[in-house]
Amino acid sequence: MSGAVHEIAERSGVGFPLKAGQRLTVIDPRGCQVADLLAFNAADLGEVLSSGRTLDYAETIRLTTGHKLYSNRSNVMLEIVEDSVGVHDFLLTPCSYATFDHFYPDLPRHRGCFGNLAEALAPYGVVPDQIPVAFNCFMNVPVDAGGRLSVLPPVSRAGDRIVFVAAMDLVIGLTACSAPASNGGSFKPIHYRVEDAAA
Amino acid sequence: MSGAVHEIAERSGVGFPLKAGQRLTVIDPRGCQVADLLAFNAADLGEVLSSGRTLDYAETIRLTTGHKLYSNRSNVMLEIVEDSVGVHDFLLTPCSYATFDHFYPDLPRHRGCFGNLAEALAPYGVVPDQIPVAFNCFMNVPVDAGGRLSVLPPVSRAGDRIVFVAAMDLVIGLTACSAPASNGGSFKPIHYRVEDAAA
Repeated sequence: MSGAVHEIAERSGVGFPLKAGQRLTVIDPRGCQVADLLAFNAADLGEVLSSGRTLDYAETIRLTTGHKLYSNRSNVMLEIVEDSVGVHDFLLTPCSYATFDHFYPDLPRHRGCFGNLAEALAPYGVVPDQIPVAFNCFMNVPVDAGGRLSVLPPVSRAGDRIVFVAAMDLVIGLTACSAPASNGGSFKPIHYRVEDAAA
Repeated sequence: MSGAVHEIAERSGVGFPLKAGQRLTVIDPRGCQVADLLAFNAADLGEVLSSGRTLDYAETIRLTTGHKLYSNRSNVMLEIVEDSVGVHDFLLTPCSYATFDHFYPDLPRHRGCFGNLAEALAPYGVVPDQIPVAFNCFMNVPVDAGGRLSVLPPVSRAGDRIVFVAAMDLVIGLTACSAPASNGGSFKPIHYRVEDAAA
């Protein structure tokens, strides 16, 4: 791999392979922008990123450097090895036509991260019903003492990043999130880079 | 439906149909016992209970009377119409061989709710990889201000219950949970009752 930086245009998404041992760097180039991340076992798409397994093993909803992201089969898919922000979400599913209808009935509908991920992952054989809770890089979802959750603007600033190392061969889905509240009211691109372990 | 009370033996699980409009009452007969609940669209098993959609729409992790449980397609599957406890979990996946290996390496392995649900739902065509985060009735998983989660004994007392009404024809999976920490260190049965809307 070249390690070149790729841009995901605002309100869009991409799918790409990530080999075991490769590093994936997700960059918020302008700040205050969410990127939804999904991972599937490239050899068997029935194995997919699992918020429930990951939160159980991590014993926290605040995942950062040193935490591992697990699959529905309790295998490690990704490990977070660097993180300049420390505020990400792993509770919520990707935004979609239905979430736009619910939260933004007066705005034009958008297929959201869900639709973008479904299209980007279709060439790999992923069907929409398989899309689970995403690891939402830079998404700021505090939970108060009564359990109430809020979707606040990300605290990430221009150039902030989170870096993952793949523990198995993966198919990755990654977006520049499309929902107004999640991104402080404006839509920005996301950058990412894939590097070999030796890079 | 007779409305008879059925018992789920300790550390086991069942699968059964629940028609649109029917009421499902889940009872903790002795107190301090968790029941993992799953729901699939009976007409299309690709549609399944979704913690991420539900938490997003509810804007809380503390679901109780009046809250609706949504599918991965953003359709309402179940509504909570009564709840004598108010403390349930919708963050964690069912316990399994792997979670026993992780949390209880010195105890005999158990297939847990995951294995029990997989067996109970197999006759309906559900495959293990489709098992998502369950709605864990009576499970007590507080999240502190720093995001750290704990699995504490349920606060449910003998006879406590939570009642759901089905919004579509469903296949339900339901267990008497098998993990020591989740159940205050002992394993008890769970009772449930299905009633027609007119009952």
